[in-house]
Amino acid sequence: VLAAPALAQAMPEIRWRCASSFPRALDTIYGAGEHVARRVAALTDNKFRIQVFQAGEIVPGLATLDAVQAGTVDCTHTASYYFVGKDPTFAFDGTVPFGMNFRQLNSWLNAGGGREVLKPFFDTYNVVSLQAGNTGAQMGGWFRREIRTVEDLRGLKFRIGGFAGNVLAKLGVVAQQIAGGDIYPALERGTIDAAEWVGPYDDEKLGFQRVAPYYYFPGWWEGGLNLAMLVNKAKMEELPPLYREVLESACRDATIETMAKYDRVNPEALRRLVAGGAQLRPFPRPVMEACYRAAMEVYEETSNTNAHFKRVWEHFKAYRETQLQWFRVAENSYDSFVYAMQAQEQQARR
Amino acid sequence: VLAAPALAQAMPEIRWRCASSFPRALDTIYGAGEHVARRVAALTDNKFRIQVFQAGEIVPGLATLDAVQAGTVDCTHTASYYFVGKDPTFAFDGTVPFGMNFRQLNSWLNAGGGREVLKPFFDTYNVVSLQAGNTGAQMGGWFRREIRTVEDLRGLKFRIGGFAGNVLAKLGVVAQQIAGGDIYPALERGTIDAAEWVGPYDDEKLGFQRVAPYYYFPGWWEGGLNLAMLVNKAKMEELPPLYREVLESACRDATIETMAKYDRVNPEALRRLVAGGAQLRPFPRPVMEACYRAAMEVYEETSNTNAHFKRVWEHFKAYRETQLQWFRVAENSYDSFVYAMQAQEQQARR
Repeated sequence: VLAAPALAQAMPEIRWRCASSFPRALDTIYGAGEHVARRVAALTDNKFRIQVFQAGEIVPGLATLDAVQAGTVDCTHTASYYFVGKDPTFAFDGTVPFGMNFRQLNSWLNAGGGREVLKPFFDTYNVVSLQAGNTGAQMGGWFRREIRTVEDLRGLKFRIGGFAGNVLAKLGVVAQQIAGGDIYPALERGTIDAAEWVGPYDDEKLGFQRVAPYYYFPGWWEGGLNLAMLVNKAKMEELPPLYREVLESACRDATIETMAKYDRVNPEALRRLVAGGAQLRPFPRPVMEACYRAAMEVYEETSNTNAHFKRVWEHFKAYRETQLQWFRVAENSYDSFVYAMQAQEQQARR
Repeated sequence: VLAAPALAQAMPEIRWRCASSFPRALDTIYGAGEHVARRVAALTDNKFRIQVFQAGEIVPGLATLDAVQAGTVDCTHTASYYFVGKDPTFAFDGTVPFGMNFRQLNSWLNAGGGREVLKPFFDTYNVVSLQAGNTGAQMGGWFRREIRTVEDLRGLKFRIGGFAGNVLAKLGVVAQQIAGGDIYPALERGTIDAAEWVGPYDDEKLGFQRVAPYYYFPGWWEGGLNLAMLVNKAKMEELPPLYREVLESACRDATIETMAKYDRVNPEALRRLVAGGAQLRPFPRPVMEACYRAAMEVYEETSNTNAHFKRVWEHFKAYRETQLQWFRVAENSYDSFVYAMQAQEQQARR
């Protein structure tokens, strides 16, 4: 029936090492990498195995790309925007301020030419990027004091990642890079005034509500963070074709799974946080607008000095424009109506 | 290296037939079924092959479930709500009026217990349902006359699917079941006053804008239609474990792919439709509210007479409630702000 030797050739024993940028304690985001490994094993009768290491176990969480390039590990499960210090173009493979939400970014990457536009850039790093999870729109973080006006941002010491930090710097924010475990004491001592992390479920583990009770939304710098599996290009090309298909499928599976899980656990965590004293606050509209204008300036300025960034931004921007026009029609009018009815029902019950 | 005979046993040659409920001309929704087949072949070195037949080729599009139960075909790629005539509980596996959007339904099915809650129901039909695509929020359809008040719905002959028809019947709408190819002449002759189909890209192919120019949104009865691969349960159990994993992965892959593709093609199609004379109209708020109340009545009434429906609705309803509370915070405030800024920019350019 089967040409068994041919099949054995198509499915050799392969072992890979994957360095995650995340700690194991984040079962959501770290879990997405483990989900990929589990699916790859399940789809190959355990012939292709990926071992996932948490941040710091064999490589520091923010140095995983170097390790992939050096071949120390075969791949990293990460957020590409961690590497904006090397080049801000990495941000488009993760998320950018006022960029696209999960659906829109998914469409850009998989059907809109985004993956192809990013390819020449990733080629210069000898890595291949595969979509492997998403967090959805994140929260705006924890603040010791309320933010009432644009002026309240001036001098604010805010723990926030790279590219969004550039935007906020235009409004006088002093962006701070602090690793996850060091945020709580810094907030407690007042070394920093505010910190953003992910969303309710992941944030809850760090306990920020006890020292910085104002919990702002939305996280306009992360409207839908795409998680990536960055694979050493030569290692990818050495894989038998069947395993390349398997790896890609497993990564897409992780996207569905992680999105489903985040959407499952965040509502319950938000409820617990609010019950525990978190004060939910929307960023005031003038603050949002000032940040939006600052972001658009940063895109233009960065485009003037970085050809990769310019090429990707122009494609991304045009696609985003078209996406927003459509989403405003059916999707957003549907969502907004349903949310309004729920608010009305809650009002009626009071 | 490899125990080749063991692998050959794990990967026998298998051929399946899949009856799609959709015509091949709908490259989006029919394409999702073909995508599953392609991925299954790619992940098994062509050992497991699924041949997809378009609606009517071997089984009529709305009779595919019967064919799966009878074993005439191994599976059907369909929208489960096509079978609400057998039991309205099928609707929850597709979409229900004012139900959950893509993200929320994805979460319910994959992480929220929805799949488990539906299982005993599907067991009674000897089928297993796998998530295999989504259309996103649909449009509200094409109308020969404008709908300005709730009273305008009275006597309206509207081509619309099963469960939503029950809701609209409460407001005096005469729901019509007409196959895709017969809608255009019925609209043209005035045998019907309105018809809904899917969204801009699929609708465009049928040319409704020429005979019913008012294009309403949102399609509140389809806030995110989940497409299903319904598989004969015995055939599923006969599959080697590896192939079950493969089929499930391929279906999830189709969800990512189809969502990406719909979001890619709908914006451009909407632009062409509007340029070609379609008059875009939101359903008036009082009309939406009347439909919402009618839908909630139908859920309660159906629960009173159908135990499966009641069990699933209660789970679905509680999950939806929690989802909406969370999506109103980060996701919707993010989206709505970005859309408002785009509207403001468009205004400024005029």
